[in-house]
Amino acid sequence: MSIDGIHDLPWDKMEEECGVIGIYGPGKEVARLAYFGMHALQHRGQESAGMAVGDGQEISLHKAMGLVTEVFPEKKIGELQNEKSQVAIGHVRYSTTGSSLVSNAQPLVFRYAKGMLAVAHNGNLTNAAELRQDLAVTGAVFQTTTDTEVIVNLLARYSQSSLEEALMKVMIDIKGSYSILVMTEDRILGMRDPYGVRPLCLGRLDNAYILASESCALDTMGATFIRDIEPGEIVVIDKKGLTSLKALTPLRRASCIFEYIYFARPDSVIDGIWVNLARRAMGRQLAQEVQIDGDIVIGVPDSGTAAAIGYSLESGIPFEEGLMKNRYIGRTFIQPTQEMRSQAVRLKLNAISKAVEGKRVIMIDDSIVRGTTSGKIVQMLRQAGAKEVHMLVSSPPITYPCYYGIDTAVRKELIAAVKTIEEIRELIGADSLHYLTEEGILNAIAEQGEGLTCKDFCTACFSGDYPIEVTDKQGSSCC
Amino acid sequence: MSIDGIHDLPWDKMEEECGVIGIYGPGKEVARLAYFGMHALQHRGQESAGMAVGDGQEISLHKAMGLVTEVFPEKKIGELQNEKSQVAIGHVRYSTTGSSLVSNAQPLVFRYAKGMLAVAHNGNLTNAAELRQDLAVTGAVFQTTTDTEVIVNLLARYSQSSLEEALMKVMIDIKGSYSILVMTEDRILGMRDPYGVRPLCLGRLDNAYILASESCALDTMGATFIRDIEPGEIVVIDKKGLTSLKALTPLRRASCIFEYIYFARPDSVIDGIWVNLARRAMGRQLAQEVQIDGDIVIGVPDSGTAAAIGYSLESGIPFEEGLMKNRYIGRTFIQPTQEMRSQAVRLKLNAISKAVEGKRVIMIDDSIVRGTTSGKIVQMLRQAGAKEVHMLVSSPPITYPCYYGIDTAVRKELIAAVKTIEEIRELIGADSLHYLTEEGILNAIAEQGEGLTCKDFCTACFSGDYPIEVTDKQGSSCC
Amino acid sequence: MSIDGIHDLPWDKMEEECGVIGIYGPGKEVARLAYFGMHALQHRGQESAGMAVGDGQEISLHKAMGLVTEVFPEKKIGELQNEKSQVAIGHVRYSTTGSSLVSNAQPLVFRYAKGMLAVAHNGNLTNAAELRQDLAVTGAVFQTTTDTEVIVNLLARYSQSSLEEALMKVMIDIKGSYSILVMTEDRILGMRDPYGVRPLCLGRLDNAYILASESCALDTMGATFIRDIEPGEIVVIDKKGLTSLKALTPLRRASCIFEYIYFARPDSVIDGIWVNLARRAMGRQLAQEVQIDGDIVIGVPDSGTAAAIGYSLESGIPFEEGLMKNRYIGRTFIQPTQEMRSQAVRLKLNAISKAVEGKRVIMIDDSIVRGTTSGKIVQMLRQAGAKEVHMLVSSPPITYPCYYGIDTAVRKELIAAVKTIEEIRELIGADSLHYLTEEGILNAIAEQGEGLTCKDFCTACFSGDYPIEVTDKQGSSCC
Amino acid sequence: MSIDGIHDLPWDKMEEECGVIGIYGPGKEVARLAYFGMHALQHRGQESAGMAVGDGQEISLHKAMGLVTEVFPEKKIGELQNEKSQVAIGHVRYSTTGSSLVSNAQPLVFRYAKGMLAVAHNGNLTNAAELRQDLAVTGAVFQTTTDTEVIVNLLARYSQSSLEEALMKVMIDIKGSYSILVMTEDRILGMRDPYGVRPLCLGRLDNAYILASESCALDTMGATFIRDIEPGEIVVIDKKGLTSLKALTPLRRASCIFEYIYFARPDSVIDGIWVNLARRAMGRQLAQEVQIDGDIVIGVPDSGTAAAIGYSLESGIPFEEGLMKNRYIGRTFIQPTQEMRSQAVRLKLNAISKAVEGKRVIMIDDSIVRGTTSGKIVQMLRQAGAKEVHMLVSSPPITYPCYYGIDTAVRKELIAAVKTIEEIRELIGADSLHYLTEEGILNAIAEQGEGLTCKDFCTACFSGDYPIEVTDKQGSSCC
Repeated sequence: MSIDGIHDLPWDKMEEECGVIGIYGPGKEVARLAYFGMHALQHRGQESAGMAVGDGQEISLHKAMGLVTEVFPEKKIGELQNEKSQVAIGHVRYSTTGSSLVSNAQPLVFRYAKGMLAVAHNGNLTNAAELRQDLAVTGAVFQTTTDTEVIVNLLARYSQSSLEEALMKVMIDIKGSYSILVMTEDRILGMRDPYGVRPLCLGRLDNAYILASESCALDTMGATFIRDIEPGEIVVIDKKGLTSLKALTPLRRASCIFEYIYFARPDSVIDGIWVNLARRAMGRQLAQEVQIDGDIVIGVPDSGTAAAIGYSLESGIPFEEGLMKNRYIGRTFIQPTQEMRSQAVRLKLNAISKAVEGKRVIMIDDSIVRGTTSGKIVQMLRQAGAKEVHMLVSSPPITYPCYYGIDTAVRKELIAAVKTIEEIRELIGADSLHYLTEEGILNAIAEQGEGLTCKDFCTACFSGDYPIEVTDKQGSSCC
Repeated sequence: MSIDGIHDLPWDKMEEECGVIGIYGPGKEVARLAYFGMHALQHRGQESAGMAVGDGQEISLHKAMGLVTEVFPEKKIGELQNEKSQVAIGHVRYSTTGSSLVSNAQPLVFRYAKGMLAVAHNGNLTNAAELRQDLAVTGAVFQTTTDTEVIVNLLARYSQSSLEEALMKVMIDIKGSYSILVMTEDRILGMRDPYGVRPLCLGRLDNAYILASESCALDTMGATFIRDIEPGEIVVIDKKGLTSLKALTPLRRASCIFEYIYFARPDSVIDGIWVNLARRAMGRQLAQEVQIDGDIVIGVPDSGTAAAIGYSLESGIPFEEGLMKNRYIGRTFIQPTQEMRSQAVRLKLNAISKAVEGKRVIMIDDSIVRGTTSGKIVQMLRQAGAKEVHMLVSSPPITYPCYYGIDTAVRKELIAAVKTIEEIRELIGADSLHYLTEEGILNAIAEQGEGLTCKDFCTACFSGDYPIEVTDKQGSSCC
Repeated sequence: MSIDGIHDLPWDKMEEECGVIGIYGPGKEVARLAYFGMHALQHRGQESAGMAVGDGQEISLHKAMGLVTEVFPEKKIGELQNEKSQVAIGHVRYSTTGSSLVSNAQPLVFRYAKGMLAVAHNGNLTNAAELRQDLAVTGAVFQTTTDTEVIVNLLARYSQSSLEEALMKVMIDIKGSYSILVMTEDRILGMRDPYGVRPLCLGRLDNAYILASESCALDTMGATFIRDIEPGEIVVIDKKGLTSLKALTPLRRASCIFEYIYFARPDSVIDGIWVNLARRAMGRQLAQEVQIDGDIVIGVPDSGTAAAIGYSLESGIPFEEGLMKNRYIGRTFIQPTQEMRSQAVRLKLNAISKAVEGKRVIMIDDSIVRGTTSGKIVQMLRQAGAKEVHMLVSSPPITYPCYYGIDTAVRKELIAAVKTIEEIRELIGADSLHYLTEEGILNAIAEQGEGLTCKDFCTACFSGDYPIEVTDKQGSSCC
Repeated sequence: MSIDGIHDLPWDKMEEECGVIGIYGPGKEVARLAYFGMHALQHRGQESAGMAVGDGQEISLHKAMGLVTEVFPEKKIGELQNEKSQVAIGHVRYSTTGSSLVSNAQPLVFRYAKGMLAVAHNGNLTNAAELRQDLAVTGAVFQTTTDTEVIVNLLARYSQSSLEEALMKVMIDIKGSYSILVMTEDRILGMRDPYGVRPLCLGRLDNAYILASESCALDTMGATFIRDIEPGEIVVIDKKGLTSLKALTPLRRASCIFEYIYFARPDSVIDGIWVNLARRAMGRQLAQEVQIDGDIVIGVPDSGTAAAIGYSLESGIPFEEGLMKNRYIGRTFIQPTQEMRSQAVRLKLNAISKAVEGKRVIMIDDSIVRGTTSGKIVQMLRQAGAKEVHMLVSSPPITYPCYYGIDTAVRKELIAAVKTIEEIRELIGADSLHYLTEEGILNAIAEQGEGLTCKDFCTACFSGDYPIEVTDKQGSSCC
């Protein structure tokens, strides 16, 4: 989640690259339901939004740059939907730079030998360049630089097979992380990579089925959560109901740990674990690992708050709202001049003197990526009268880039990859700086649910231990 | 404060009508500072924004409908400001309907016998119609329906006097609530009504002076809070420095109690009282007045959170985040159809099953105006599994409309004016419903500071006891 | 008329500053009729458009920068109009630079002692500064820099009189050129200055009356032309029908000669003279005054075409379309770089080789103001193969600025004021250059109608003989 | 050419579907030159505009709905172009309805096995559906419904050949009308179908080569016309200069006769014939075929004017401007209500009473398609006082639809296909109605140049004699 749509104000967070939603619901207003779901998934991508709707005969598409509410005014919802509409898929995207050549927004809708298809994808293929090359040699053309177009072309190559079989073949071809929705004029298919890196869950609303990146999308529609899609599973939803195919058996689970640390909405439940509780547990764990003689515990809003509350509950040091967030940050933001640059963070956060004055402050944030804003916040707290500022991070140092769909910096920009903790502490000007241990975070999260053990998470960004082979480190425009 | 810019989704809150900011800062980038300040005051009005900048010779103006960041892209800031710019005033406004005739956005800039003036106003005159009538008879014309234009014409009538004297005469003419900023090409004057209804404070940044509706605007600029402007005081800021005139002595203080309950930003300090602490104290007081046998305490985000924490601290019942707010609500919002209407609140809030399931929930909100959303939230909590839902309101029932600058509903729309508490409880479907007493809230707030006693607040909306005579109940477009 | 909306491409023409339209039509869709009329008057001003509609009780207003079709989409027309709407006035404006301080768009709508009034004005007061000063001393405030606001304030000063009497008093106060429409909630009044500088005519459509700057607006609505409003006349249109007041008797007529030369639409009939015929007569006169041994006659589109046809008919030299105009010039236009600057005129005009190759070309334009484009057109014709290019201008040299509502350049920018004809010829690179004589043009125009004689035109821009005293040469924002 | 951008006001004309421009110009500002050229070709398509620019390594693209000046503000031109830019192609498009699924704007830019390609196309393939089917079977996917994407996929299939050879193979595959530009990162190739239906010409500006749909684009850039591309010719322009390949020899020429009647800009020269002269010749021919005892000849602006002048010159009956066109029709246009519907044509045209009153009017238009507006114009002329109105059409009756890139109505909407001339005359209310004969028009045009004889034109829309086989009458989105 980037914070409240401040896109131009560089905030020091990793960026999720997509969210997907699919509805199979003859007789329902599927476009409106998809709109509601995309809205709930907005934190997974704020740069573009798109929706494809099938009415049994045709697929209609609308996509554009902007927030869901901007891209889909009431009128657009009405235009996409008719009385025969029965399936819809939606996509929100955080797009990296350089994608101006051709719009990479999703879903992609295309015609092939068997009719029309729409595809939406969250994740990143690690062998996309290779596959693209193979396809081009035999005459494929590409209008985008997305992995999704590679998937689309593979599906077309297997057009002699049934769509289910084609998807199974595609799953063998592609490597990497993916939660993919495929829609025909009247069916929805979903699949999740065999490692289960990116989340995907299933819900129900009356007789309609929903596939969504996170369970909060189900709540927003008033739908009931059924279960998570399993790694390597393909589900087919059509008039015959729901069919499950176990396409590939995973060697191991590798759920993205950053979904729990930062990306997912706190009210989502992913693979059996309630995200907010996991975050609070990280705070509790932090209190066990690091004892600070402080007067108050504060969180950096919004993502540091749950861990701060956990720390407070475990340590008994009172939780205080020491940083106030401005709730009205618009999307286009003036570039502060040199004189005003130190003010930039103040537009977003305000340190509350009345809360921190004369106090030894324990400040908790969920992560440090480049280290560009923590120092400014520490400085603000001191100016507001804090006697001491101790920074605690509720996750381990990020030292390796992600190739599975997250926009971390390149390695040399990751501050923890190039500096010692003491150097970072000095840089941000804190009285002390502590990170949570990898063992600590794994235990803290795994204890919150029954399905996943400590070994079932991808922690490559901390450890460099990549569960899925990466042949294409340059990366295409993943999602 | 409306909540996160949901303008089309009717939220059940009173609406503040304006915020003002003024900078006297030769050698500073006054337009940019005003922009920062307006940004911090955005919660006081999201419909229009305007800024006037004086460079010693001319006043430049830009104003438009929209959020501060929309109305003032970087380019506009640059255009308003030149190397001689020395004074700036800004205004944010929540505009009531029906103002399409002529834009009522502020500041108003006009030429009169002595040059140019810009005026920005927060509050509402209670004898505006009368004054307007008097002025019209002698040839005045009005292009807006704002009180501000009345003030402008009065100033022009007194153009033979010095501006200080003219303002003193105007203060004698006008009745009601007001914090007014007046700017010439090179000076800034501020005045606050003799009852001190609306807030206005003074700050300093190096050699620059700032006047602002709330202290949070000073923080955002990195300025230091000096003091609140006193009721009935006029301050003049120019190259001779700051001069204070005590124009009118108030019969009594009448600080708007709703600034503390809901309007002001939690990190502001108004007339010596830290708003967040006041809210927490209301929660504590509520815990003393109303004991509920509950399992968890939750707040309706964002405005009910502080009171909920206070209630938890006092009662010992754990505070929990039971309602999750979607941080990405855009400004234009689709109208849900009948089928989807019950979903509307879900787009904004999500009840977290994992938090409330099987629990006896104490839900705290700061106020109920029309009673349109509380019932939906209670219902959501029950659907999420709450065993009991008790609603506690951290202020007394609103039974009278405000004539001092707040957009309450007309009296018959105020639910507490037409229904008993038991009827309201039934309507919203809560297991119990309790309001804070008037005595309780007054004590809770007054104890947080030294300047104000229980008798120094305007509580007309609870008691019908209007401290300032109201001759014009129809109301012009106040601010 | 600027040419086809090329605003950023500086075209060498004088600029008309406004057009007005008024409808009295209970039971008619008055807003839509006004829209049609403004559309027909678009050539008189393309920078802003505005319309005020009265329904017997209230006046609604909409105005904005842009073309009529941009400012008034269907939805706006519908919003302005209700089933009780009975009067409407519209205004199109060419605004000079520097008016960004406060929008000077018209109509101005205001409230005064007697209710609401809307005012629209075409022309320029020559004593506006003086009047503004007088009003300010007694407390008037001004939010625009337009003459119209001066008129508005004068009307308010006379609010104890009937509106008819107030207008008669105002006519005594103000000096200059004006066609003014005044609208109450249910009446329309029109007045034309005693010299009759700017045009104003009356038409009828069933039981509705229309006042318009030019008769082409009547045609567009399907209305019938009745007569021109007389100089110094006030007409009152209300439920009692049409009443005429002869307020002031003119010392002399002074119809603006440039309406016939360039401003008015060719299909309009002004004070009894059909504009297109007048232009053709100028061409015929030119052929009598200047014989050139040419092969073809061409006009600079569009305004030079009628004179070119006249020249051809009189001289017997064939008329040819030697310059092709691009009909799709948009309103925002890229600034050509230095390398491309010579191309700028080509975007607008193309010299047709097939027509001019090897020919001795007689090129006719209606006027030369600064002399910035004629040279480029001559050059294009030579590049296209013209053997000789003779430039003939169907009006005398412009040597004095206009103070009656036309945006000529200041005197030193008028090329004919600072250079001899031979110097101009050399500058534009023509083989010869000839202007029509003042006597010639006066005769040519006067002969086309019965109402006006050679002495009845304002020719100040040629002769410096200003018929109306000019006390305010700096000029306010006239219209 | 639609008339002056009135898109919502249904005008009774056939619609051209595209224009293309290509520049090979290392060291030139190729994007700006392309912009100038697209601007000159704007009449060939006003719905969307697009441009691709190659800098030797990459191809940049920008395209959007709107006029050239709207889609390409100065900033965009700058962004598309860098100091290494050397090739550019541009495209303007008139898009038929129903293309909202995926944007069909051009150029299409894609990556294939050999790098990047951009393709722009004017015309229509008559076997597109068949080719699309063949491609899909072997795995091709389609994101648009344009013929252009079919061409793109064919090129990719032949990626093992050189691009010249691939184009030759494509020319064998595709049937129909086409002028196609293909651009790599540093080369431009152009090809024209073997029948030469759609125009394409070659020009030079210093050391740069230009390919353009019409010669007027060359004029606008200041470039020199070299020659028309021949039917069946492929030209390759790169650092080695210009190479010509004669790929296919045509069975016959079939130049689209409607380019001469209506589509092309009057100042263009196509296949050796100056369009304006051809139109005037049609008027002369009409005068020989049809003698009317009239007082004046008028043209329906703008497209009927040239023929009207021709008729006047041949018949001796004076030409008069009897219909005035409003030059300020914006692009978005209010829908007139029933009451106002008869006014719709008046917004665009005004019949000039002074010109037509009491006259027997001969009114000339270039064509009648559906017959929806002619009647309204005749009625306007009668209301303006015309004694008689004779309508003459400077082309034969349109009785068959076009499959070669023109948006005629379907056959049953073509008025001349379903009604006799006498029935049409009665419908439009003219005193008489006459069309030019097919023999007459062919002679009139062919006589204006040396290259083309009477047999070299496509007259399918008059005769139903289609020179190129049409297998796909449903049509994809042609251009």
